[in-house]
Amino acid sequence: MTELPQLKNKITIAGSGPVGAMLAIILSRANYQVDVFESRPDPRTHIAQQGRSINITLSERAWAALAIIGIDKKVRQYATPLYKRVFHGQDGIISEQNYGKKNQAIWSISREKLTDILISQAEQEAQVNLHFEQRLTYVDFSTACSSFSYLKAGRKGHKEIDADYVFAADGAFSKVRRLAQETPRFSYSQRYMKQSYIELTISPNKDGSSKLSPHASHLWPRKGFLLIALPNNDGSFTCTLYLNYQGPISFSSLTSAKAVEDFFLHHFTDVMPLLESPVTEFLNKTPSPLFLVSVDPWVINNKVALIGDAAHAMLPFYGQGLNSSFEDCHVLAKLIKLYRDDWLKILPAYYLQRKKNNDAISKLSNDYFTEISSLDDNIDEQLNKKIAHQFALKYPELWPSLDQMVSFSPDISYVKAREISVAQKSIMAEIMQIKNIHQCWQEDHIYQELEKMALTRLAPLLK
Amino acid sequence: MTELPQLKNKITIAGSGPVGAMLAIILSRANYQVDVFESRPDPRTHIAQQGRSINITLSERAWAALAIIGIDKKVRQYATPLYKRVFHGQDGIISEQNYGKKNQAIWSISREKLTDILISQAEQEAQVNLHFEQRLTYVDFSTACSSFSYLKAGRKGHKEIDADYVFAADGAFSKVRRLAQETPRFSYSQRYMKQSYIELTISPNKDGSSKLSPHASHLWPRKGFLLIALPNNDGSFTCTLYLNYQGPISFSSLTSAKAVEDFFLHHFTDVMPLLESPVTEFLNKTPSPLFLVSVDPWVINNKVALIGDAAHAMLPFYGQGLNSSFEDCHVLAKLIKLYRDDWLKILPAYYLQRKKNNDAISKLSNDYFTEISSLDDNIDEQLNKKIAHQFALKYPELWPSLDQMVSFSPDISYVKAREISVAQKSIMAEIMQIKNIHQCWQEDHIYQELEKMALTRLAPLLK
Repeated sequence: MTELPQLKNKITIAGSGPVGAMLAIILSRANYQVDVFESRPDPRTHIAQQGRSINITLSERAWAALAIIGIDKKVRQYATPLYKRVFHGQDGIISEQNYGKKNQAIWSISREKLTDILISQAEQEAQVNLHFEQRLTYVDFSTACSSFSYLKAGRKGHKEIDADYVFAADGAFSKVRRLAQETPRFSYSQRYMKQSYIELTISPNKDGSSKLSPHASHLWPRKGFLLIALPNNDGSFTCTLYLNYQGPISFSSLTSAKAVEDFFLHHFTDVMPLLESPVTEFLNKTPSPLFLVSVDPWVINNKVALIGDAAHAMLPFYGQGLNSSFEDCHVLAKLIKLYRDDWLKILPAYYLQRKKNNDAISKLSNDYFTEISSLDDNIDEQLNKKIAHQFALKYPELWPSLDQMVSFSPDISYVKAREISVAQKSIMAEIMQIKNIHQCWQEDHIYQELEKMALTRLAPLLK
Repeated sequence: MTELPQLKNKITIAGSGPVGAMLAIILSRANYQVDVFESRPDPRTHIAQQGRSINITLSERAWAALAIIGIDKKVRQYATPLYKRVFHGQDGIISEQNYGKKNQAIWSISREKLTDILISQAEQEAQVNLHFEQRLTYVDFSTACSSFSYLKAGRKGHKEIDADYVFAADGAFSKVRRLAQETPRFSYSQRYMKQSYIELTISPNKDGSSKLSPHASHLWPRKGFLLIALPNNDGSFTCTLYLNYQGPISFSSLTSAKAVEDFFLHHFTDVMPLLESPVTEFLNKTPSPLFLVSVDPWVINNKVALIGDAAHAMLPFYGQGLNSSFEDCHVLAKLIKLYRDDWLKILPAYYLQRKKNNDAISKLSNDYFTEISSLDDNIDEQLNKKIAHQFALKYPELWPSLDQMVSFSPDISYVKAREISVAQKSIMAEIMQIKNIHQCWQEDHIYQELEKMALTRLAPLLK
């Protein structure tokens, strides 16, 4: 007769988004009793509010985490592979950039669909209880006891939940984090960008085909603003327009149909006819803010831990937000095994590993945003990239691209990826100092010099 | 028959610290109806809690603000002039640095005394009502209506206060600011330093004289920690020990009387016998955190404005915290006159002027802390200072010291002071590149070169 394994600790998770749901599955399978509380209704029976979702991109870090809970294949059925970025210049010129090697793709999926799959899976787990429309009101950071309010038959109710640990997976606007701000020595920053965003749509053609090349992300970078389109499985594209909230060209200043129409006609000439009533949408939608969160520490009294956007909301432009959050869950799963359920070791190790890596990817996302919104009209910058690209073709092992490391190499940490990228930039800055580089850039000695520097300065990092 | 002037808007001030009280006086005299709410009891009848106060230093910016409300003379009776910093090395070597020119002093005063004077003055103003032990619970950021809770005969009461504007003068841990975090696009950061602090005391000698030179601030900078002593009027000194909260040498690790005694004996040999039971005090007191606040914007809906530490809590080491906060009040007083009570102009102008200046002094305070806690064992740094000092003696107009600008020149904004200081540093960095500078630093050509650079790069900033 086999004994039933004894249930281990009781864990409360705030938030049933993709991160909360994945975490619930992982913890339940590690034999913990898990209660997930969500202030919103069950998303599978309610239509989501506008503005909640940018289409999500999944790369290898996300797939690795989805694989350990066995739902990667299911998710992939609803995702669309993207092999490249397509840049649409204002002059109509199109340029392309592959994300990775041949056949390497990142995948686009709607946030709603991904959440549905994860919540449905969580619901089937033996030790997960999901509680929707229950709003967290209080956390005792020394006991991990928390309180929730809810409506029942129109009357307000209230309950207290005991637990051994609380995970805050309640997103960029985390309530747990807001309460944590009043705990001693909790450093916190929320920074709003000047830009806000709205979503726009490109419908499929009548025959179901796409109006833009379907297996690519499309970008219209303009100085100070940006339009991005990500394909869906049905041939449509979800587009996001990033634009200053205030100022001369902004959501606040473009208030008449004429002004908005002129704006699209002038800056987005090629894509304007493809967009679904962009002028009406622009005028009717409320722009959502773009903001960054940084927190220290992530673990309070070894009782309450932050995870996902609650700990590290970052800019979306590098498409790593959810990848990084799923990696939080993945690392936690590994640490639970490694330390055999000793939470006095698990939580500090989780914080130590994930804080620095999320700081790194957040910085990379900021850098990418600066790069993309400044446009490459600088001829030095263009040559710099050309030389690096040429060299990478010859020595791919010695000169991995940042995309390659971040999106396709989950074994390379974000910290390491950033270190390598910083070293590459410093090497290229020296190469650009070579006399007459604009004339001699194709000559062999440039690439010999580059190889020498890469061998001494990059190779040790790549080990 | 003279008409009574009509009362203008109604203004709520949260917080009756020195800033709230000064602001109340200014607004009342500009003929506004002012209600000041404070969660604590009246400090004039209650003894303050431990840990609330570092002795405060007042320099010319503070005096200028105190002068416009006519209480500078009264305050000065309770303040002690400090003409210099005295550095006590671990080896017992003492060095001195004047704050300014001969007879220029900054002034030390207890926070409690200063607050008492300001509150008593506010109480005498025609249109100020002070409400103690009333805790702010809610602010409506679109209407400037706010709510307060209080105890009356042991029962909890609650009231709502209508106003035209709310000023948050409720300090570094501002409740108004915490509520403002939930308003749209409010960027906010609170950063805790590794160091915390406790207060210690040096009593006067039996004859009332001081145990250290009385008209000076005393510093014991050690790598990673720091003791500061500021004189009081009665011959005593209020000391503050800044030390890491955690780590090998920290408040958390020094837990036995023996360890604490060894710590003082080793690092503060000369001052240990002067301190009032430092070991007991160290073991019994709860260290207070050191932290920085940065906020953007300071004005919400043109209805609620932050002022003082609520808007810009900074490191205390440069002694400018309250000077800068009083300058906030002073600038506001000028803007009310300039814009003739047009608050649609006053508040945006206040934010524009004060935000950048407080950012500048906060950065200068951080830099000073880095400088003081790294100690000058670098011979390049020492020579750098020697040359600059030599030059400043020759050309005081061309090379004002940072102290001179920050503490004694209220007409030079903090932004300008920082620009000049940055320019000085860059000039000195070039001077230090001169070949054999360690040999030739006293030669004329060095100072001619310096003069040339100062004339072209500093003089335009000094205009």
